[in-house]
Amino acid sequence: MESLLNPPLSLKSADLQQHWHELAVEERKPFFFSLASDEAQIFFKDLSTAEQLDLIGDLPDAERFAWIRLLRLDDAADLMQKLPEEARHHTLALYDERTRRELIGLMAYAEDAAGGLMNPRYIRIRPGMTVGEAARYLSSQARGSVEIVYYAYVIAADQKLVGVISFRDLILANQDATINDTMKKNVVSVPEQMDREEVLGLFSKYNFVAIPVVDDEGRMKGIVTYDDLAEVAQQEATEDMLKVGGMEALDAPYLKVSFFEMIKKRGGWLTVLFLGEMFTASAMAFFEREIERAVVLALFIPLIISSGGNSGSQASTLIIRSLAIKEIRLRDWFRVLRREIMTAIVLGAFLGLVGLLRIVIWQHWHPIYGEHYWLVAMTVAFSLLGVVVWGTISGAMLPFILRKLGFDPASASAPFVATLVDVTGLIIYFSVAQSLLRGTLL
Amino acid sequence: MESLLNPPLSLKSADLQQHWHELAVEERKPFFFSLASDEAQIFFKDLSTAEQLDLIGDLPDAERFAWIRLLRLDDAADLMQKLPEEARHHTLALYDERTRRELIGLMAYAEDAAGGLMNPRYIRIRPGMTVGEAARYLSSQARGSVEIVYYAYVIAADQKLVGVISFRDLILANQDATINDTMKKNVVSVPEQMDREEVLGLFSKYNFVAIPVVDDEGRMKGIVTYDDLAEVAQQEATEDMLKVGGMEALDAPYLKVSFFEMIKKRGGWLTVLFLGEMFTASAMAFFEREIERAVVLALFIPLIISSGGNSGSQASTLIIRSLAIKEIRLRDWFRVLRREIMTAIVLGAFLGLVGLLRIVIWQHWHPIYGEHYWLVAMTVAFSLLGVVVWGTISGAMLPFILRKLGFDPASASAPFVATLVDVTGLIIYFSVAQSLLRGTLL
Repeated sequence: MESLLNPPLSLKSADLQQHWHELAVEERKPFFFSLASDEAQIFFKDLSTAEQLDLIGDLPDAERFAWIRLLRLDDAADLMQKLPEEARHHTLALYDERTRRELIGLMAYAEDAAGGLMNPRYIRIRPGMTVGEAARYLSSQARGSVEIVYYAYVIAADQKLVGVISFRDLILANQDATINDTMKKNVVSVPEQMDREEVLGLFSKYNFVAIPVVDDEGRMKGIVTYDDLAEVAQQEATEDMLKVGGMEALDAPYLKVSFFEMIKKRGGWLTVLFLGEMFTASAMAFFEREIERAVVLALFIPLIISSGGNSGSQASTLIIRSLAIKEIRLRDWFRVLRREIMTAIVLGAFLGLVGLLRIVIWQHWHPIYGEHYWLVAMTVAFSLLGVVVWGTISGAMLPFILRKLGFDPASASAPFVATLVDVTGLIIYFSVAQSLLRGTLL
Repeated sequence: MESLLNPPLSLKSADLQQHWHELAVEERKPFFFSLASDEAQIFFKDLSTAEQLDLIGDLPDAERFAWIRLLRLDDAADLMQKLPEEARHHTLALYDERTRRELIGLMAYAEDAAGGLMNPRYIRIRPGMTVGEAARYLSSQARGSVEIVYYAYVIAADQKLVGVISFRDLILANQDATINDTMKKNVVSVPEQMDREEVLGLFSKYNFVAIPVVDDEGRMKGIVTYDDLAEVAQQEATEDMLKVGGMEALDAPYLKVSFFEMIKKRGGWLTVLFLGEMFTASAMAFFEREIERAVVLALFIPLIISSGGNSGSQASTLIIRSLAIKEIRLRDWFRVLRREIMTAIVLGAFLGLVGLLRIVIWQHWHPIYGEHYWLVAMTVAFSLLGVVVWGTISGAMLPFILRKLGFDPASASAPFVATLVDVTGLIIYFSVAQSLLRGTLL
């Protein structure tokens, strides 16, 4: 993920990327090793860690090292963390002493902390230099492999971060002014232990290109750049979406996850949902007498409960997303509730009407609903209104409740809400039936 | 969305942002107008178009203009496109002739085309300059309000884009070399009509900071910067997530969408799902005789069909997301199918076993399932295996089929898959029952 730091890719490299992503997974490795070496090197740096690992994980130590050495230190550390222990040791042994120490330091951070994302190499200048001196110094320092983003960080003698100056200002500012007078003070920085999701929040809120990482004493440890976060952003979006679909996030691409891992990630939630859904069997058993007397009631059970589930999924997905992008806050819950109830009444009444017409019209062609078909139709219609309103309220309020209790609102997944609403949907349906059909069918 | 172009925000402004996002929606306007004018100005530029509109939409023309004038031209055009026609005219009239023409040009682009996102002001230099001349020229040109990203674009006499040079290279390169010899040629650019989703794809694939927009003749029209795209990325993710939840994307924040619009966006899909779900009533009617004879079968209907729905939602969400982030391609469908079948057999067998134990154990405490409870338990267990396998296959293959047919795979939403699987789940259940229970209960 090097390209932010370089001028825009040439068309050639863009074409390569395009082609790569169109290849089937098993064709990618042969394609990669068929590239000319300079093409392959540029291309390799732009791949995700998982893709890099896949390409070079099995190579002999020296060859693997030749590839890893191309990467920036933070990316190299990410990749090495995923290597088997032995391979990691062999690779580390091939680095020079200073770089090895830096890498070991980086690998010590939790993968999802700011420290685990940062690059320890950045442009540092002293506050006492003039702008012109800094520009010339930078020019000599920057020709090496130091990571260049468009900022130089101003570090005092005690290693504390005291300011930042952009390349733009190095060009535009008075060349004789001191850095101290030209730099921006009060730089936003993040502590090395900050969770990467929080770091991501800062980046997307302020459109930072890079953000410095400091330790407890305010000493600068490295920088996290936008391109590192792009991968994080994608992973977080994936996590959220899979949660909404009712499963745990996977740690690797779909085709790379082990079979056992896949079963574990999916089986957990599926079993929880299944256990929840078992209450429907108990609820149904409770109404067994009613079903026996009026089998016609059983016909509409799937229609009724799924309508509740669908309206609940809609509401919960909408609210989860609105909370995530901060369109609404916890304290807006009552406004949301009012709005959702109004919406649900209209939608529920409409579905109820459609259901009623369906039964009444159908009866004229295939008279299967018995002489009391009008009563059955009314039962279905009112139940639909009831379950849609109840499903919508549950779906809309559950994310608020989860957030309030400190859980991730995204856990209010479509299947979870549907399961929750199924049991109550049955109770609503049979209660309506008991009141409307007493004395006729029941 | 100005901050990419400036050095990192000071802590003060970051705190303001934090505070703003914690406020309830109705508290935001009073808070904004209570800010000191310089604070408010910086802060205003960082808000989304919808938030800006909300703050200044109702102001008198002159005051509204004072705010809009602070924005970059592309952001100003976005905002003005959302103003009522009269207010738009009045605001345009307050601009100088040149800027008005640029704004009208920008507003003519479709909102979701590259041209609609771009800023027509960028740094342009001539190929014949030396690097040193360019740096000095840039320094004079850039002090004004021209948009500065970290690239200067090299434009030939015929207005064609011939190359690009980064500020970094302007500092690092030999100051006496010509721009022509130093610049990168073969710049990646996008046509002005390119869809913003495609532009976004380029940005996230290559981590561009900015990308030039050219017309059919290769003449440069403006630049699209990363910060413009950040908003687009969020909108696209929202669209996808809402689709997965079974509804159409909204055009405005949750609390701003009109009631009628909300009903329309949710009612459409809900009705389609409802009509689909009506087939369950027909399927159930088909098996009415079986239900009449063995009411106990009815008890497990919700459990069986929802298990199919849940496993289908999991599979479809997983595949939708893997397709979206290109972990898998259309041609991988067979590998995915094989994998999903294996996964589903294990998961289905497990749920079947749990269901079987539930019935057999429960029967010892509450003997409600009759003398043939073992047969009922077996029926439920085999049906569960069947619906989980079928649900998973449907959920996993549907996104591939939609993509193949040219639709968005995200339309294979959890509720859609659940509805699809409900009807077939019933058929599987009653077919298993017919084979296992013939001669005893049926």
